[in-house]
Amino acid sequence: MCDDESVLYPSEQLEAFSTRVFRHCGLPQDDARLASRVLATSDLRGIDSHGISRLPMYAGYLSNGQTNPRPRLAILRESPSTASVDGDNGLGLVVGPKANEIAMDKADAVGSGWVSVCHSNHFGIAGYYPLEALRRDMIGWAMTNASSWVAPIWGTERRLGTNPLAIAFPGHEEPPIVIDMATSTVAYGKIQIARRQGKSIPEGWALDEKGSTTTDPNDVPKDGSLLPLGSNRELGGHKGYCLASLVDILSSVLSGANWGPFVPPFVRTDYNTPSRSVGKGIGHFFGAMRIDGFIEPAEFKRQIDDWIRTFRGTKPAPGTSGPLVPGDPEREAERVRSRQGVPLAMSVVESLRGLAKDMGVPFD
Amino acid sequence: MCDDESVLYPSEQLEAFSTRVFRHCGLPQDDARLASRVLATSDLRGIDSHGISRLPMYAGYLSNGQTNPRPRLAILRESPSTASVDGDNGLGLVVGPKANEIAMDKADAVGSGWVSVCHSNHFGIAGYYPLEALRRDMIGWAMTNASSWVAPIWGTERRLGTNPLAIAFPGHEEPPIVIDMATSTVAYGKIQIARRQGKSIPEGWALDEKGSTTTDPNDVPKDGSLLPLGSNRELGGHKGYCLASLVDILSSVLSGANWGPFVPPFVRTDYNTPSRSVGKGIGHFFGAMRIDGFIEPAEFKRQIDDWIRTFRGTKPAPGTSGPLVPGDPEREAERVRSRQGVPLAMSVVESLRGLAKDMGVPFD
Repeated sequence: MCDDESVLYPSEQLEAFSTRVFRHCGLPQDDARLASRVLATSDLRGIDSHGISRLPMYAGYLSNGQTNPRPRLAILRESPSTASVDGDNGLGLVVGPKANEIAMDKADAVGSGWVSVCHSNHFGIAGYYPLEALRRDMIGWAMTNASSWVAPIWGTERRLGTNPLAIAFPGHEEPPIVIDMATSTVAYGKIQIARRQGKSIPEGWALDEKGSTTTDPNDVPKDGSLLPLGSNRELGGHKGYCLASLVDILSSVLSGANWGPFVPPFVRTDYNTPSRSVGKGIGHFFGAMRIDGFIEPAEFKRQIDDWIRTFRGTKPAPGTSGPLVPGDPEREAERVRSRQGVPLAMSVVESLRGLAKDMGVPFD
Repeated sequence: MCDDESVLYPSEQLEAFSTRVFRHCGLPQDDARLASRVLATSDLRGIDSHGISRLPMYAGYLSNGQTNPRPRLAILRESPSTASVDGDNGLGLVVGPKANEIAMDKADAVGSGWVSVCHSNHFGIAGYYPLEALRRDMIGWAMTNASSWVAPIWGTERRLGTNPLAIAFPGHEEPPIVIDMATSTVAYGKIQIARRQGKSIPEGWALDEKGSTTTDPNDVPKDGSLLPLGSNRELGGHKGYCLASLVDILSSVLSGANWGPFVPPFVRTDYNTPSRSVGKGIGHFFGAMRIDGFIEPAEFKRQIDDWIRTFRGTKPAPGTSGPLVPGDPEREAERVRSRQGVPLAMSVVESLRGLAKDMGVPFD
């Protein structure tokens, strides 16, 4: 969990620091706490790419006015079980949890709630949102689109984000099943790791700028692209393209956000500005379903326990310890990190110290 | 579309024959028409494996009492936007459309409707159901579990069906986007084709009985298994496993049907009977969302048109004619087949003639 180049920090310390930084950037106290909670959840669950390592970037956009520190969410349209919400260009870490809350409140009232969000920004890990639904004994869904890295099958250009989808189901004695997956073969972070380590990448992860498969990770930032889950036509890559498309449409066409290649990038440069705007900001989609709108919740959870034990009991493939249950790796990370602390790479520590200094806010 | 060994039949003729057969098996007239419509939609859209070729099997189960020809659907539990339904062991081709209707009626009333179904049987193509939602200007979802062929990543045993999911979005001037995909790398039909042709299969489709990857399609029926979308851990096979799991849970744990390895097979033999029963029959999950519960439908469709044109305009990958839009191949098949007729393999023609003779019902 912790190599030579990283330092362990208690999660609480990191969360308190994020809160101070967000406060300094002008967020109301409750919103600063909410955004920090999303980041801390990511770090605890081992998804380092989406945690506090991104705080300097969020803070930069808040400071330079690119992101609104005090968004006022507006419901654009609604029915008893659905709504579209304008996030007022707030942090996705604030807009996302509030829109998810609207979905859960609607589920409370009529059995399910579905909210499509426009005019938002990067919302952290998709898995955060269904975990919130579990607290209310609901099945929760979350999706988001993102700036485009993924080529549709038979195309050479980036057209879709790694568009994750997440859903969670509660167990009784067993921990919940938590699914949180990009719809691309891999997230861009894996390309970055290979580049840093000077290693090649497997066939099936990416295309070069000409649309040919490549094993050189350096081809990806040079006008190359990632491949959708399934990698190629023969192995079902058109299905990954379908999944990324449905996430894109539910998150953005349904809310009035930008979709496909027009989604604004998380890191904006002159180079990667979309050629046109087709909506407002980026989009998310949240769902919540009351279990008791279908079945007795105790019975559902008893069956989920049985499901989990059945899958754990599957005969292992050669050289493996057997199938995992979705959410196992993140749960294990959380167990270790909540006790030992969150390992931060020295480069991240340095950037947080820099941020602390700039803002006059204590870090460590 | 039609090789030496197949014969073209007008779709209407096949649909009328199916209706007569289902009537003969004791279905009420409306149900016989409904079931035949689902089969005809499959044949027209080019999904031969799920069309009239299966009629002898459906008829066999109805005749021997394994399937109930006159099911009375019961709502087990409901909220304004959700329900669970007991299909009374009817044909999935009858239970499915009726449960889907309940989802759409709930959407009419409160913006969205979600129905989980137990005690059903094989429901035909998943894509049929969102196409019905399109007629009511809704976004429709359908999922079903099925008997297990797919191994979870790092497992060697069949634990999940090819569990498809489908969703469709209407365009204005452009045809709708229709997604209908198995969550395995390939459907079992592709293994059968390779076996008949004596060809090997690509790495990434299947495992042999020991859990090693195989290129011999004959290994699959011999206690081998199919792989989830993504094929292996490196290419994201755990994500396909997650998708198959979420379809399984929403379709069956939520309704009280059998899940995972306990789903009864479509073709029952002594050999493949599940080791225990954990619910009733197989399960489905349907969803419907009113577009105007989120956004002005005309605006939504205008953006879908733009989305479709943008994706069609993507620079083609080498050796291809560029990306398709989900639903293109089925739409093209429907265009050709509605004019020229549905090609049936001679073996299928023979089996339908046999069925016609047994039942004293005219075929051709």
